[in-house]
Amino acid sequence: MAEPTERSELPNELADLLGDRRLVIGSSRGPYTFLPQSDGRLAINRCGGGLVTAMMCVAEASAATWVCAASSPHDRAMAEHDPRVALPPGNPSFEMRMLPIPEDVYDRYYNTIANPLLWFVQHYLWDLTREPSYDDTTLAAWNEGYVTFNETFADAIAEECGSTPEPLVMLQDYHLYLCPAMLRARGCTAPLTHFTHVPWPGPEYFRVLPSYMRTPILEGLLSADIVGFHTQRYVQNFLWTCRQVGGYEVDFEKQQVESASGTTTVRAYPISISESTIRELAAADEVEDRMETLREVAGDATVIVRADRADPTKNILRGFEAYRLMLRNHPELRGKVVFFAMLYATRTGIEHYRRYLAEIEDIVARVNQEFGTEEWRPIRLRIADDYFESLAAMRSCDVLLVNPVFDGMNLVAKEGPLISDRDCVLVLSENAGAYEEMGRACLAVNPFDCRQTAEALYEAITMDKKDRAERAAVLREIVSRNDSVKWLYHQLRDADEVAKVCNSRSKPTTASGPSTVKSADVTTSSAASSEATATENPPTDPPSRSSPNRSNAATSVTSSPRTIA
Amino acid sequence: MAEPTERSELPNELADLLGDRRLVIGSSRGPYTFLPQSDGRLAINRCGGGLVTAMMCVAEASAATWVCAASSPHDRAMAEHDPRVALPPGNPSFEMRMLPIPEDVYDRYYNTIANPLLWFVQHYLWDLTREPSYDDTTLAAWNEGYVTFNETFADAIAEECGSTPEPLVMLQDYHLYLCPAMLRARGCTAPLTHFTHVPWPGPEYFRVLPSYMRTPILEGLLSADIVGFHTQRYVQNFLWTCRQVGGYEVDFEKQQVESASGTTTVRAYPISISESTIRELAAADEVEDRMETLREVAGDATVIVRADRADPTKNILRGFEAYRLMLRNHPELRGKVVFFAMLYATRTGIEHYRRYLAEIEDIVARVNQEFGTEEWRPIRLRIADDYFESLAAMRSCDVLLVNPVFDGMNLVAKEGPLISDRDCVLVLSENAGAYEEMGRACLAVNPFDCRQTAEALYEAITMDKKDRAERAAVLREIVSRNDSVKWLYHQLRDADEVAKVCNSRSKPTTASGPSTVKSADVTTSSAASSEATATENPPTDPPSRSSPNRSNAATSVTSSPRTIA
Repeated sequence: MAEPTERSELPNELADLLGDRRLVIGSSRGPYTFLPQSDGRLAINRCGGGLVTAMMCVAEASAATWVCAASSPHDRAMAEHDPRVALPPGNPSFEMRMLPIPEDVYDRYYNTIANPLLWFVQHYLWDLTREPSYDDTTLAAWNEGYVTFNETFADAIAEECGSTPEPLVMLQDYHLYLCPAMLRARGCTAPLTHFTHVPWPGPEYFRVLPSYMRTPILEGLLSADIVGFHTQRYVQNFLWTCRQVGGYEVDFEKQQVESASGTTTVRAYPISISESTIRELAAADEVEDRMETLREVAGDATVIVRADRADPTKNILRGFEAYRLMLRNHPELRGKVVFFAMLYATRTGIEHYRRYLAEIEDIVARVNQEFGTEEWRPIRLRIADDYFESLAAMRSCDVLLVNPVFDGMNLVAKEGPLISDRDCVLVLSENAGAYEEMGRACLAVNPFDCRQTAEALYEAITMDKKDRAERAAVLREIVSRNDSVKWLYHQLRDADEVAKVCNSRSKPTTASGPSTVKSADVTTSSAASSEATATENPPTDPPSRSSPNRSNAATSVTSSPRTIA
Repeated sequence: MAEPTERSELPNELADLLGDRRLVIGSSRGPYTFLPQSDGRLAINRCGGGLVTAMMCVAEASAATWVCAASSPHDRAMAEHDPRVALPPGNPSFEMRMLPIPEDVYDRYYNTIANPLLWFVQHYLWDLTREPSYDDTTLAAWNEGYVTFNETFADAIAEECGSTPEPLVMLQDYHLYLCPAMLRARGCTAPLTHFTHVPWPGPEYFRVLPSYMRTPILEGLLSADIVGFHTQRYVQNFLWTCRQVGGYEVDFEKQQVESASGTTTVRAYPISISESTIRELAAADEVEDRMETLREVAGDATVIVRADRADPTKNILRGFEAYRLMLRNHPELRGKVVFFAMLYATRTGIEHYRRYLAEIEDIVARVNQEFGTEEWRPIRLRIADDYFESLAAMRSCDVLLVNPVFDGMNLVAKEGPLISDRDCVLVLSENAGAYEEMGRACLAVNPFDCRQTAEALYEAITMDKKDRAERAAVLREIVSRNDSVKWLYHQLRDADEVAKVCNSRSKPTTASGPSTVKSADVTTSSAASSEATATENPPTDPPSRSSPNRSNAATSVTSSPRTIA
């Protein structure tokens, strides 16, 4: 069991909010994963991604238990042997509990329900003429995949809450929609937040889901005290979905929904990055090396960069199409610009993703063939999982293209402008969550409008130095002001309000034991949460914090090496 | 020029509302079209479709001018010769004015912008990973197609209003979104309604349109006094779109939007059919003949019917997939059921539609191959434009499948239950506009859920006689109570309220002439309409009407033969 580190590693205001409370975090993907080394032994590796990076900060500082799925055969083997891992290795401060989800359950949950079904619905990506089309397989994947997956989490988290004096449960993302209701059904009365890291669609598109999914998904989420999203647009969409699809009573002013489980407060908490972490990573030798290589390729050319998972949400095809249009309309730029596309393959178990990757390679080949010469290749496509290379590209770029069809937040849009050595111009889709914050200093594009995107690329390439510098300064300022600590701060502050109500009212039910609580007790808990004080909106800033603590916290995050034997 | 017929042909309450007012109707498709006969001469034919049938009633009774596009080469030739046609032929009571839209303008407007772009956006049909993708062609099709098309209408309608003492302008559908603003810019101060016959999507999906379309579309619609849709869902979506995309001030209670053009009232008017018209048509000899043929094919089998345009919105592929699932799960039904699919090819100038038709033929072949025997073909696919045959199928059916992905209203869902000789069970998509009225007596399905649709088909086939009869009675009652006269009545009543305000305030600006009005005058007109009295919601019923008048009106509609030499 991990020995908690000092609270001082957490920025003061977060520590104040947490008090003696311990976090129980639930997310499908965990913060670390086991991978075999060349000598055959398993090594534990730190995972990337915005969620992990942001949550790690409080996990370490609150001696959290982080419940996650053992998704690979290696993780599964380790989890069956001993599910609890003290982390970070060598200097443990929190605990990861890996759930050994059986492979067939995981496959149904992940490859049929979570991706592509929920993912595509939440990003408006289905070609509805033909897909989705639900049959017995879908129903089985739901019942014996997604539901079972959530039940396994609920069992484990309820158990953790039972052995923790003052738990605060923070569930993450679309993988765990059912978990809040399952926790309540298991007698868990802890304050409970759920955060969705993807967009929430309008009610009519949410209705694309079969009724045996949409009803429990809404009931599940509305069993949480706080439901969080990245933007006000998603909050509004969720509130409308609750009213129109679920028939719930919704207060649009207070952003609250009444259900049998009590009151749920719905809030936007735009996720961000840790400035010091990313700056430190971007300064690593590995990044400098790769910048050198990029410089050799690019020469004097203006550098356009994109860095994405090869996911249909990212709109990679139209990005290249826009670049092609620009090269057609501005022949004077041929040979004077280069497009580095740093992609990494993802979800290759799903046909849509394999096809998408093939289409990407195809359009790159066609653009390079149309305009390429012996000296100049217009697009440099790199398909690899090399974060250092992405950082090197972002540091080197003059123009950063972030044009997703729809995207929950998109942290590349925040990382790039922060670390760019060249005051990069951000060409940003109005459908990226980041647009709500960064819209005023980017060049905004409709992601379906290749003509407009081509013009924006041209404008970015030819923008004068002063304008670039001014925009870049604004973008940096936006990212610095709302970093990942603030994302957590606002959630913990709101959860604290809920907890005060819970503490003063539902303690007796906790005493009755976690798994024998009857529905009456659940109702008590709901009634308690229904009186949770409404928090302000938009959220107020946290009190000014002492920078030493903050940089300590950042260090404690960044100092975790990416691979630990 | 047509001599108006007596007002008595119109149901009393409509006549009262119209008073001395004359309608100027604008719709892309007109009520009649010219077609060559075998002897080479052109004959004028009555067009079908819910819009034409419903509007014809008031057109005839108000001596309306119906402005429409000459869309075929024959219509264009006739329109260039003489754009005005007195109709119906032989017994004229209103006038059709055909606009000779140049072929290239029409092609851009129709085949690029209206279909598939607007159509697919309003039905959530794009495969957003790949389409739409806007380039210079899209912009040109907008500027030199859709905009020009609307301008041509605005010029003609402004002219008609100028020569009509008390005009009421009723614009129809997604082809004419820009027309209201263009009319105001031309000084037209007449009360103006716009009715959209397709769904209105949520704000986020509306944003799929490029900004150079969505801004003028909203400005266009908000220049109308009344904006109508088929259902409350579309009204809500439109109001949200106005607020979220356009940034307009929206009163969700009153269902009104404030814009620079004043106040626009947004209302649901569910379109319907004329009971007497459809009953009369369904009793025609041509229908009886075709029923005979169907009976020979079906024998004692239970008859499932669908009757649709071969449009992706209609969800024809999943309908057959559901039927296949049902035959798999219920082998005892093989040979005892037959599925008549009465389809007619549509928009074959568009690749999506050609591909869709091919996919339909493919799945039919596969299902017939999987289950068919020498004696029994499970699906009888008929691709033809034979309304009598559709009526024959509807009269003969035990089960009517109406499972659109999304559909503005879907009049088959109203026609079928009304004329079925066999108390047909309606299996209805929850995404058809008709579902808002008919949901309580149909078997509702999620159109994407083939498993559920298969179960609903099975339930419908095996439903006992009493249950069938009770449901059928409720469905008939719903259709009878809200017929096409009521659809018009509510619109005219609300327009009448607007007109009272306009009459008392904007007469002076009318005097200043139609085409020389400056923006100040437009503002005056806007200010007037902004004080239009809000009408109640939901709309109250019209006063009880004398049935003789009503059946007269119906006769005047149905007596128009479908083909007139």
